[in-house]
Amino acid sequence: MEKLLSDRIKSTPPSFIRSILKTAADPDIISFAGGLPNPVSFPQEELLASMERIVETYGSALFQYSITAGLPELRQYIAERYNRNFGLRLTMDNVLITTGSQQALDLISKVLLNAKDGVIIEKPSYLGAIQAFSQYQPVFYPVELTESGLNIEQFKTALQNNIKFVYAIPDFQNPTGLTYSLENRNCIYEILKDYEIVLIEDDPYGELRFDGVRLPYIGAGRLPGSILLGTFSKTVTPGMRVGFVICADQELLKHISVAKEASDLHTNIFAQYLIWDYLKHNDYEAHIAKIKQLYKEQAQAMMDAMERYFPPTVQYTRPQGGMFLWVTLPEGVSSLSLLPKALDKKVAFVPGDPFYINRKNTNTMRLNYTNADCETIDEGIRRLGDLLKELSVQ
Amino acid sequence: MEKLLSDRIKSTPPSFIRSILKTAADPDIISFAGGLPNPVSFPQEELLASMERIVETYGSALFQYSITAGLPELRQYIAERYNRNFGLRLTMDNVLITTGSQQALDLISKVLLNAKDGVIIEKPSYLGAIQAFSQYQPVFYPVELTESGLNIEQFKTALQNNIKFVYAIPDFQNPTGLTYSLENRNCIYEILKDYEIVLIEDDPYGELRFDGVRLPYIGAGRLPGSILLGTFSKTVTPGMRVGFVICADQELLKHISVAKEASDLHTNIFAQYLIWDYLKHNDYEAHIAKIKQLYKEQAQAMMDAMERYFPPTVQYTRPQGGMFLWVTLPEGVSSLSLLPKALDKKVAFVPGDPFYINRKNTNTMRLNYTNADCETIDEGIRRLGDLLKELSVQ
Repeated sequence: MEKLLSDRIKSTPPSFIRSILKTAADPDIISFAGGLPNPVSFPQEELLASMERIVETYGSALFQYSITAGLPELRQYIAERYNRNFGLRLTMDNVLITTGSQQALDLISKVLLNAKDGVIIEKPSYLGAIQAFSQYQPVFYPVELTESGLNIEQFKTALQNNIKFVYAIPDFQNPTGLTYSLENRNCIYEILKDYEIVLIEDDPYGELRFDGVRLPYIGAGRLPGSILLGTFSKTVTPGMRVGFVICADQELLKHISVAKEASDLHTNIFAQYLIWDYLKHNDYEAHIAKIKQLYKEQAQAMMDAMERYFPPTVQYTRPQGGMFLWVTLPEGVSSLSLLPKALDKKVAFVPGDPFYINRKNTNTMRLNYTNADCETIDEGIRRLGDLLKELSVQ
Repeated sequence: MEKLLSDRIKSTPPSFIRSILKTAADPDIISFAGGLPNPVSFPQEELLASMERIVETYGSALFQYSITAGLPELRQYIAERYNRNFGLRLTMDNVLITTGSQQALDLISKVLLNAKDGVIIEKPSYLGAIQAFSQYQPVFYPVELTESGLNIEQFKTALQNNIKFVYAIPDFQNPTGLTYSLENRNCIYEILKDYEIVLIEDDPYGELRFDGVRLPYIGAGRLPGSILLGTFSKTVTPGMRVGFVICADQELLKHISVAKEASDLHTNIFAQYLIWDYLKHNDYEAHIAKIKQLYKEQAQAMMDAMERYFPPTVQYTRPQGGMFLWVTLPEGVSSLSLLPKALDKKVAFVPGDPFYINRKNTNTMRLNYTNADCETIDEGIRRLGDLLKELSVQ
């Protein structure tokens, strides 16, 4: 069998996500390892009402094959929402529905990458993106992510290579929870406008800002070849796998659409009708406001607990939104080798390693605060704190 | 933009499927062009009842992220069904849920193909498969499909190349409607058992046999590295995009799973619960029996109408199941150049060209009989017959 495998699949790392989800399934473990929205944020009753309404109204269209680009009504809704909220000038022809944002990452790399092409990513970056891109065997150029955004000098240097695209999560980044400053965004824009390079601006968490003010996109609305990714996974339901690609360049979007057609024909059309009907018949903004309040409290509970239980040698980010917080242990401490001990204490996290290209035993870890209540968060951080204190004693 | 595109996407043909679906949407046109199941075959009421039941029973699990391999209960159901019906010895670990069968075609090529690797396909073959495989830039070795199956001499010759996999649809093939004979199946099995080559046996239509007796699989259950593809698209609903990969070789399946994780994390979990609940609470066999009766009548109506309206110089296959019938025009007649004239007469079909590798103006066409009632079929074939008669007069 081995000799039949493609070079591509040999260079694709199996993700930590699978083991994370398995860990999260053990009810005894307090898991900060997943990237799961809080299930209380799923509008179940409203979704069931929408199901009944759309079956009544649209009948067999919900269950039949459909077009690759996605439900026109949903694409129109998305275009209008982004025009209204962010001053973009989109039509539904600038929007393509994907089977979650993960598919967008796969399709874009499929369309743009030959083996050995260059890709700029943040350091650290989202492990699912690293996995998706790896399938197409690029050369990664990681650029340090700081408290204010990309390290601009490193970014300029990285751009000297044969780069096809830059992948960035400017709001509440996964894994760090960091947000690019306005100045950093403008600086990146000024640099990129002279290059024919695609900027992929991944924005799964932007709606979930619970502190500070919303900052403008880097590329959307001003860099013509840039791509903006969005999703309903964090605000309505991830299980339905409905994400979207926004792109002003319809030529590029057409190629992404051909790749999508070849990859899964179209995204579940029932799910598209469902999300659209839900949005139309409910107060989406009020729903988002509730999620934000919830996550603000949970993030605060985690930071408070860290203040209380972590030794002062341990640092952590203070996110203004999103789902994650990033912990830096003292130099030389491997979070990976800490994980089994944490699991013994019935608490889980993701070691930093899979968020980097070819790095082992980093002193960082990602913690998720959205999928546990405040008391559980406090207890989990206490357990982790005990472990970290034992460490600093040694 | 052009210079940013991958070689891969440049070699991926945009599919006829999109324009087919657009054509099918014009209510004035009698379309035999799509590959759409008859909407009366969707168990809408039963599916709505299942939706209400699963929301009540499983709540947030329907809307949360889930595991890549797919819902264990559904995989278990599939394993048991194939064990019972076809004497296989599967566990749920041999089953991976995909976002429709189209995704399976993408994932398998992703896992197996380097550029320039050889792929054996039928001549003609399913255009969606040609599109999916093309993304990975293989060399295609088409083997003539005859009334009894693959041309064995051509098959043996093709195997002399650097082949990674063979792709076959042995039952009611798309586009021809042809079925491999028992002898042909055994012959292919005997040849393949000495090669380390993956056989992909695509079986979307096998459940829809309305004439003759079911024949055994070529690879499933006896060629260890073979892959069997199945789907609920033709028997329950295509809109939900739930297909599956069956593979005895768990090592190979693990690689396909990594590729899936990198491509869309997992298939819509609500849809998986829905299909599973539907299967559990309804008489699936009785439902399939109804679809078969419907399609038998529609296929018969199409063949009867062809007998009546087509000139004797035009030949066509007589399918024992599935959704398609294949028409061969007199030598030298291009079905592609016939299409605009057919659309003028408000009838549509798919010209044979996209089912071949690099062939233009073939004298073949694919007709679908599942998505129109018998009267409409008769009228459509009459219009097409008029056109074909004008042709033979010239």
